[in-house]
Amino acid sequence: MLHARDLAAAIRAGRTTPRAAMEQVAAAIAAHDGQVQAFAALDLDAALAASAAAGLADLPLAGLAFGAKDILDTRDLVTAYGSTLYAGYRPRTDAPVVAMTRRAGGILAGKTATTEFAFLEPAPTRNPHHPGHTPGGSSAGSAAAVAAGMLPLALGTQTAGSVIRPAAFCGVTGYKPTFRMLPTLGMKTFSWHLDTIGLFAARVRDVAFAAGAITGRDLDIADDPAVAPRIGIVRTARAGEAGADAHRALDAAARTVEAAGARIRDLDLPPELEAADAIHGVIQDFEAALALGDELAFGRERLSPRLAAHLTAAAAIPADTYDTARRTAKRARHALGDLFGEVDALLTFSAPGPAPEGLGATGSPLFNRLWTLLGCPAINVAGLVAGNGMPVGVQVVGRFGRDRQLLAIAELVESAIRR
Amino acid sequence: MLHARDLAAAIRAGRTTPRAAMEQVAAAIAAHDGQVQAFAALDLDAALAASAAAGLADLPLAGLAFGAKDILDTRDLVTAYGSTLYAGYRPRTDAPVVAMTRRAGGILAGKTATTEFAFLEPAPTRNPHHPGHTPGGSSAGSAAAVAAGMLPLALGTQTAGSVIRPAAFCGVTGYKPTFRMLPTLGMKTFSWHLDTIGLFAARVRDVAFAAGAITGRDLDIADDPAVAPRIGIVRTARAGEAGADAHRALDAAARTVEAAGARIRDLDLPPELEAADAIHGVIQDFEAALALGDELAFGRERLSPRLAAHLTAAAAIPADTYDTARRTAKRARHALGDLFGEVDALLTFSAPGPAPEGLGATGSPLFNRLWTLLGCPAINVAGLVAGNGMPVGVQVVGRFGRDRQLLAIAELVESAIRR
Repeated sequence: MLHARDLAAAIRAGRTTPRAAMEQVAAAIAAHDGQVQAFAALDLDAALAASAAAGLADLPLAGLAFGAKDILDTRDLVTAYGSTLYAGYRPRTDAPVVAMTRRAGGILAGKTATTEFAFLEPAPTRNPHHPGHTPGGSSAGSAAAVAAGMLPLALGTQTAGSVIRPAAFCGVTGYKPTFRMLPTLGMKTFSWHLDTIGLFAARVRDVAFAAGAITGRDLDIADDPAVAPRIGIVRTARAGEAGADAHRALDAAARTVEAAGARIRDLDLPPELEAADAIHGVIQDFEAALALGDELAFGRERLSPRLAAHLTAAAAIPADTYDTARRTAKRARHALGDLFGEVDALLTFSAPGPAPEGLGATGSPLFNRLWTLLGCPAINVAGLVAGNGMPVGVQVVGRFGRDRQLLAIAELVESAIRR
Repeated sequence: MLHARDLAAAIRAGRTTPRAAMEQVAAAIAAHDGQVQAFAALDLDAALAASAAAGLADLPLAGLAFGAKDILDTRDLVTAYGSTLYAGYRPRTDAPVVAMTRRAGGILAGKTATTEFAFLEPAPTRNPHHPGHTPGGSSAGSAAAVAAGMLPLALGTQTAGSVIRPAAFCGVTGYKPTFRMLPTLGMKTFSWHLDTIGLFAARVRDVAFAAGAITGRDLDIADDPAVAPRIGIVRTARAGEAGADAHRALDAAARTVEAAGARIRDLDLPPELEAADAIHGVIQDFEAALALGDELAFGRERLSPRLAAHLTAAAAIPADTYDTARRTAKRARHALGDLFGEVDALLTFSAPGPAPEGLGATGSPLFNRLWTLLGCPAINVAGLVAGNGMPVGVQVVGRFGRDRQLLAIAELVESAIRR
């Protein structure tokens, strides 16, 4: 994999150049993307030309290549949202997160493949660790491109489990920041209370570095790991749906991080949080029926049957049911705030197991949707392996707005796992 | 003015038809819009044809004409956001609030004029009560079209004071619902934490009826007025910037609503709220610089000098300043929740006075921005008159999510004023 933070440091130190780094990206894409199919659109000639510009090394991202999930608007590459309805679509402006990444010195190498409108209908992408396994979804291309060493950085999005799950399945770091730390404007909306922009990179220090560079916040934690954090181990009421590999990974991560100095304890989620987990779908679907209402009304024949049926059912959710769900979510946010009085972070499953076999489905967001709904930051920490040799992740969840603290704790978990 | 609720009732009762009502709208537009200039785009032939469709009378809005501020995407009428940068632009889909209004039986008659990107550069619209006075902004056309009897209902938006202020200046009801009760998707974003969709109609019962029809919520309060509500009279730390007409209107409204049975008391805002008022601009401008960053970078010569300068300055706001402002806003929301333990609604200024003379500026959002930031519902109640004969409004502010209660209290204030 390409390590964003080290690569930017090497460019700044004059040990390599943005142009040489981009050539490495182009070579990796030429070598691997025929099998992985991580890209929905590419313009490597433009990226190579851009990487020759003067002054890139002085910018925070130092001319690093990045990919943007094809659910994000770009002004120069076509944007299709994973749907034939938008084939060839050219938005007027970049999504602000894309523009921010460019202004920070990132060079857009391509659009990464997404499931249809970032919902469940798979992208063509294959898991770089085994072409017969799903890379997860919906940010399939972003996770796979980083895992295959084709990109040092990729933007993705999560409405239920679309950052953490593919990161876990592909064995990379996936970082879902605090809700709206990265603006969602210019992302094709599925659910405005849930849609969250996230980052994919090799290691925790890489997403921290990139998030700091993109947002201008002090998030680069690589030389400043957490000291003796209090970590709650959370298996949730859905623990029975996590397989043996996921349980082994969580147990192993808990043991090793404790050995590294963390104070760990098992935690049951309070009832307000379990209640909120159950109503994620109400909020997501009520809003999706409005957000994609015109696509259903005027383009139904070009939607997948799965999405068309889902939106049709969603349109029948009464406003009162939605309002009640929103109040349930609000109570859960307060309960989570209380919980973070007792611990600094939660350690939990990233997914029910390693990437399932087959390309017809993208796996389950069962262990992700609650943290999306609550808006708190979450990170998939990679480095553990299932019985079949596929990657298994663990998820570290932090307090709303305390992204720096969470990144430092995730870094500690990662070092402990990889020791 | 056209009264939406009565008009829909007359259609349902067979006393008139959607087609006859639309002909009345077309005639009023022909008679008045040459002077008022409330519309940015019109297709009355299409609206008249649509009004002849079968079954309209059975829908909640019964075929009523509505206007949509030209900051909202529409699939059939061009959408220019008040900027020559977007002249002739045709979005792929309706903004969901437009689609919802259509599905409820509303017929889109035209796009109403907006200031440039809903900021300060005026629309060509004139105040129907005096052509030499501003109608306010940014929802200039929506307020003026209702005031001039050209539309029974119009959609607008508010990021600082863009619904309540023009409603006050034009003497109509302006209703800014709880944040996101009407989805903002498909609105050209200025600030995603502040942008709010609102409604304009003749009376309080008309906006209540329309909001209920559009959202499927039980909001129609016309036969169910509030009984003896507790109302706090709020002059704010900025009372000195309200003129004599505004003070007289607020005092008169307080006296009459007390005589109608309300329990009133003077209230000072707690310091958390005054602090939040001061940082509205930080949140608005930090987000505007991101939301309109590409327009500034690639279309600066087609922006007004005022907006270009504002966005340039806004781009220099540090992320930390923004994060601090967001925390200030959060504390204020908690403080407002506590305040609503003591009263059911607040009664305050809608604007510093009646519509200022001149068309080069749209007036001040000084008494609106706090309530936008806090996300709580607010209504301009019309019916009072300044010394110069121009309308003066008063503003009723309610608890987050309690829109029905607020509408009922606003109805009581309105009946008291108009008695």
